[in-house]
Amino acid sequence: MLVSHLEMGMLSEGLTQVLIPVAALIGIIFALLQWYLVSKVKVSGDSSNGLSDKLIEDEEDGVDNREASIKCAEIQNAISVGATSFLFTQYKYLSVFMCVFAAIIFLFLGSVKGFSTKSEPCTYNKGSLCKPALANAAFSTVAFLLGALTSVLSGFLGMKIATYANARTTLEARKGVGKAFVTAFRSGAVMGFLLAANGLLVLYISILLFKLYYGDDWEGLYESITGYGLGGSSMALFGRVGGGIYTKAADVGADLVGKVELNIPEDDPRNPAVIADNVGDNVGDIAGMGSDLFGSYAESSCAALFVASISSFGINHDHTAMSFPLIISSVGIVVCLITTLFATDLFKIKDVSEIEPSLKRQLVVSTILMTVGIAMVSFFALPSEFTIFNFGTEKVVKNWHLFFCVAIGLWAGLVIGYTTEYYTSNAYSPVQDVADSCRTGAATNVIFGLALGYKSVIIPIFSIAIAIFVSFSLAAMYGIAVAALGMLSTIATGLAIDAYGPISDNAGGIAEMAGMSHKIRERTDALDAAGNTTAAIGKGFAIGSAALVSLALFGAFVSRAGINTVDVLTPKVFIGLIVGAMLPYWFSAMTMKSVGSAALKMVEEVRRQFKTIPGLMEGRAKPDYANCVKISTDASLREMIPPGALVMLTPLITGTLFGVETLAGVLAGSLVSGVQVAISASNTGGAWDNAKKYIEAGVSEHAKSLGPKGSDAHKAAVIGDTIGDPLKDTSGPSLNILIKLMAVESLVFAPFFAAHGGLLFKYL
Amino acid sequence: MLVSHLEMGMLSEGLTQVLIPVAALIGIIFALLQWYLVSKVKVSGDSSNGLSDKLIEDEEDGVDNREASIKCAEIQNAISVGATSFLFTQYKYLSVFMCVFAAIIFLFLGSVKGFSTKSEPCTYNKGSLCKPALANAAFSTVAFLLGALTSVLSGFLGMKIATYANARTTLEARKGVGKAFVTAFRSGAVMGFLLAANGLLVLYISILLFKLYYGDDWEGLYESITGYGLGGSSMALFGRVGGGIYTKAADVGADLVGKVELNIPEDDPRNPAVIADNVGDNVGDIAGMGSDLFGSYAESSCAALFVASISSFGINHDHTAMSFPLIISSVGIVVCLITTLFATDLFKIKDVSEIEPSLKRQLVVSTILMTVGIAMVSFFALPSEFTIFNFGTEKVVKNWHLFFCVAIGLWAGLVIGYTTEYYTSNAYSPVQDVADSCRTGAATNVIFGLALGYKSVIIPIFSIAIAIFVSFSLAAMYGIAVAALGMLSTIATGLAIDAYGPISDNAGGIAEMAGMSHKIRERTDALDAAGNTTAAIGKGFAIGSAALVSLALFGAFVSRAGINTVDVLTPKVFIGLIVGAMLPYWFSAMTMKSVGSAALKMVEEVRRQFKTIPGLMEGRAKPDYANCVKISTDASLREMIPPGALVMLTPLITGTLFGVETLAGVLAGSLVSGVQVAISASNTGGAWDNAKKYIEAGVSEHAKSLGPKGSDAHKAAVIGDTIGDPLKDTSGPSLNILIKLMAVESLVFAPFFAAHGGLLFKYL
Repeated sequence: MLVSHLEMGMLSEGLTQVLIPVAALIGIIFALLQWYLVSKVKVSGDSSNGLSDKLIEDEEDGVDNREASIKCAEIQNAISVGATSFLFTQYKYLSVFMCVFAAIIFLFLGSVKGFSTKSEPCTYNKGSLCKPALANAAFSTVAFLLGALTSVLSGFLGMKIATYANARTTLEARKGVGKAFVTAFRSGAVMGFLLAANGLLVLYISILLFKLYYGDDWEGLYESITGYGLGGSSMALFGRVGGGIYTKAADVGADLVGKVELNIPEDDPRNPAVIADNVGDNVGDIAGMGSDLFGSYAESSCAALFVASISSFGINHDHTAMSFPLIISSVGIVVCLITTLFATDLFKIKDVSEIEPSLKRQLVVSTILMTVGIAMVSFFALPSEFTIFNFGTEKVVKNWHLFFCVAIGLWAGLVIGYTTEYYTSNAYSPVQDVADSCRTGAATNVIFGLALGYKSVIIPIFSIAIAIFVSFSLAAMYGIAVAALGMLSTIATGLAIDAYGPISDNAGGIAEMAGMSHKIRERTDALDAAGNTTAAIGKGFAIGSAALVSLALFGAFVSRAGINTVDVLTPKVFIGLIVGAMLPYWFSAMTMKSVGSAALKMVEEVRRQFKTIPGLMEGRAKPDYANCVKISTDASLREMIPPGALVMLTPLITGTLFGVETLAGVLAGSLVSGVQVAISASNTGGAWDNAKKYIEAGVSEHAKSLGPKGSDAHKAAVIGDTIGDPLKDTSGPSLNILIKLMAVESLVFAPFFAAHGGLLFKYL
Repeated sequence: MLVSHLEMGMLSEGLTQVLIPVAALIGIIFALLQWYLVSKVKVSGDSSNGLSDKLIEDEEDGVDNREASIKCAEIQNAISVGATSFLFTQYKYLSVFMCVFAAIIFLFLGSVKGFSTKSEPCTYNKGSLCKPALANAAFSTVAFLLGALTSVLSGFLGMKIATYANARTTLEARKGVGKAFVTAFRSGAVMGFLLAANGLLVLYISILLFKLYYGDDWEGLYESITGYGLGGSSMALFGRVGGGIYTKAADVGADLVGKVELNIPEDDPRNPAVIADNVGDNVGDIAGMGSDLFGSYAESSCAALFVASISSFGINHDHTAMSFPLIISSVGIVVCLITTLFATDLFKIKDVSEIEPSLKRQLVVSTILMTVGIAMVSFFALPSEFTIFNFGTEKVVKNWHLFFCVAIGLWAGLVIGYTTEYYTSNAYSPVQDVADSCRTGAATNVIFGLALGYKSVIIPIFSIAIAIFVSFSLAAMYGIAVAALGMLSTIATGLAIDAYGPISDNAGGIAEMAGMSHKIRERTDALDAAGNTTAAIGKGFAIGSAALVSLALFGAFVSRAGINTVDVLTPKVFIGLIVGAMLPYWFSAMTMKSVGSAALKMVEEVRRQFKTIPGLMEGRAKPDYANCVKISTDASLREMIPPGALVMLTPLITGTLFGVETLAGVLAGSLVSGVQVAISASNTGGAWDNAKKYIEAGVSEHAKSLGPKGSDAHKAAVIGDTIGDPLKDTSGPSLNILIKLMAVESLVFAPFFAAHGGLLFKYL
């Protein structure tokens, strides 16, 4: 009996069934609690706005509180309406895509066995009967739609809370930087926890419901579930690309005329593109990123579940071990909950200089706590020894092996985060060198910035390589999948930190537009500067986890497609490899050019308004914000289609025409090349942004010698910052999705490619 | 008898023995003849300078011929002395490197069988005895030194003729654009033919001499010969990197102060960095590129010979078929000779607009003629059918298969050349769009330029992929090797076109510095503009051929290292792949930062001279050219070491510590990633350069609306041009060498790695 317990792990099936949904519910309740706390800050102009108390500092400024509050409410409303209307327009397009692609999935997968409704012998669980391919097609389609809807919901909820919190952060900034920080961070936490808990819950319920039909056929069950990852990531692609083009077209356009030509400050209400810019933060950085990380999370869970289903977990029907990936995520939610208290309750921010350390502390605390959590799950939920399939061979794995796999993913994430911080924060020499190179103009700034981005890939790549080597050696592809899960296990905290940035950015914008005092703007600027670095860290995490997730999905694809080796030295694979390595360039060319063209249009519109609207420059007339919003909306919706099509069609075309070997090459090539392009693009952009902020803030002697605002060096820095915008917020972060999405799509369509793929080689 | 003839190919052994050296000698004689023709233009100031006749146009200008001629001679001398002294200083460093590395080769390879002097059974030619590993070590070392010396000689001779021709081109420009073009082109041809013929001859003689010892042991013979490729490429690396840093530090430094700050024209004699800039063209673009293409040529020949030696050619000792790669190169020399006549004698340039078509015609004519040549060689020199080893299996190949392999390489090169031209010439919309984006400033210019570079990789990658697929499918790795040779078979013409560019660039510089008339400067500018595009085409060729060569070397390495598959889905290979894909970024970060730092120093020196030398700006005092030359020299010699070490040490460390599988991954990763970075970097840089020239020339209505020189759009274009300098002339073109060199080094050290490699995995 004891032996059997050890073999099956010590956590009983019943307890698992309870633990997962309970953790998800705790996450949701915690998120709602945070939302409630944020909602206590009132933005309307009436007397019940809770500002009567403690507004000591503000009274000194002698600003009319009521008026400021009303103005904030107005601006917040404009941003919220703009963001909501953009997302709804985008969702209209996406719903068409979803329907078409759902049909493609059903038809392609259904055709694997000619739409037969007969049961088939299982592939891995020899001797048993599995459900017909047609059922897998139907359930994959359903899972795809569920994933897509959850992704859309995640992005939308994130946007809602962000546009709810931005003005509240501004208003709280009047009471001090600590209050403002807590408001922004709590709002980020709402998003983080809602998303993590939601993703887990929907996936868990889907598995339970699918099981009603599939019963003991776990192969088919988890094969269909991968559709969930595909749905999540395909929405994320459009969210990231569309949102990225939207926000950067507005940002670049606003800056080029406002800051460079007319010398008016950022977020000045006279600038016609300023509302579009602030809307952009919410649809690009918040909704886009929310969908993106949800996608990563969904994919890594699906990859781990799929690989587990064809290992001894699946064959022996060990429920608890099979749920290992979901239990990891459940524990992650609890760990992140405790971690959040460190930022909001256990430590109080009293000074601007404490903001960045507090955010960094979140990363360390969550990583340390999670390591303990992983150890507990590994020893209680897993049998002490089990078998994993490794491309045709079998591998015996011990439970502490898996602990190392998950933990190394988690810690590799921390290393990537800290490296990113080193290369993008202006507290260290790399960014300071870039700022220094502005002395000789924009050209040297750009040369140094590009070199910095290239250099910043070295450590992350070695971390990823080590994580891959260790986890692969210990537990083959399953090891990689759980390492990715490890990196994403603290996703709630990661997202909270990530979302904090754009919320603070918006808060600063609102303060400027509402004409609040210089002191308040300084506080929101400090919040924002910290957010810039954490945004870069968040991107580092997203890219690192994407690399691991893609590799795991790639491995699952190869297993499912029935090929045992992917030999570089065969022509089919090699041409895939080199063409795959080219795709990130093609994709970046499209997205960057889109931002450039849209920004040019924005510039023309902003110039036109300043020319034709009398009194605009003097602040006597209001600009036509709506027209700029329209330009960004139209551009992003039109321009997101070609890069989206490139990513969605490449696996389909390659698999159908050239077969699974070439497709495997394409996946490997785009993975190893895309990671580099993505990391260097987002760090270069982050470094330029902070080099500019470094000169503007003028804190050190060195920084003062380069400034002040408006100096030649500062102008050169602004040019770098503008170039970095599309790199760090459009093309860079979309590339994670490119590599993940192609991999998950290949996995979902693997049965089709294996059955009917490679037409070109078959008939030539 | 007839059957035997067919089996062995129709060209007899004796005829082959004559054909190769005769072709090489013809090439050398032709080169000397061209040199003689160029030397007829006199640059000294005495009455016998041959200018008395036909100088009609110049007399109209009323310039004192004697004085101009003397001034040109002075400037030419300064450039020549600077370039010679830099190269000699560089060679001192390189000779140390050569000795150390020769010792490493000998020790590593000698240790394979513990320095035993006993003969060993052959690896491929079962049943025969081969020479001891110690002999291979000794001969590899000799071959390495021969390759290194030939490479250095190629670069040096190229530099000599270029610095000999530059002033002569300027002086001929007084007689008309046609004369100047012919002088510049003939000088380029001297370099092209000397280099191609020399490379072939030294390789041929080395094989003959090595055979005296090796006799029938062709395995050992051709294994040792690969050292020739390693020697050639390692010198090329330092030449390209050192020369690239030299030339761009001077160029960027000169432009940042001269053009941007002080608003004085390019190549103005008042600029202290102007001589360093012109010296740089000769040591970077001429000597560096000469070594580079020589390296590619040597490596592809060695790769083809090595693969052939372990196929039935080698086992059956078929001399003629074995010499197939050398015969292709021999025919190439003759074809290029005929092609050259099209530019220098058959068609005469009468107008500026005829220059670019004439250079492009060279590409087409040489490609068409060479296709016929390849067909003849394939049918006369090869047996109609033979066997090739393909990673453990055997493959039957027909002679027309090989024709297709060589021809597809050749034509892929042409496609890459034309694509490059499309993306970098200002006659087409991509560069015009980039120029147009300068309207809104430097930031949009950079965004559009980067996007253009990313986009420009698509067609070249597909061409390379198709060439690889076809040649690999037809004749395995041997097919790839001869496809690379095909692309390089017209190397003499390619180099002539390539060298033409910097010579014209220098000629323009000399015209400006000698204070010659505007009309003459216009002619040299037109020569230079055409040279810009051809330089980009040359880089496209270099990169495309490097991709094929590296793959062939990679295949040879895998064969020699005794592994049959390189499976991406093993952790050893995958970590190699992802780290390999990172290396081009690391390398680019180093070289770009080097250029940036050196340029900053140059800027300070130039500013200092303008501040401290009274009368310099007014042209009354002479600047201190020598100090700027020294800054460039010191920077390039110091900064070439870290990137050089990265490339040279990576294969050694990876192979020794991690073993051949991981090394195979590194090679594949750096190949597929490096090609993209290299193509995009060099095309982005070329496009920015020509966008600036487009605005300056102001030929169309559109261009006029952006100009003239000094307009805001032009200033933005100059910033782009400056950023592009290190991309297109330092990091981009060095990356070909990175991927080739790591591959050839791995091949040379393969016996050592196979015997003693992978220490870390062995003892862990």
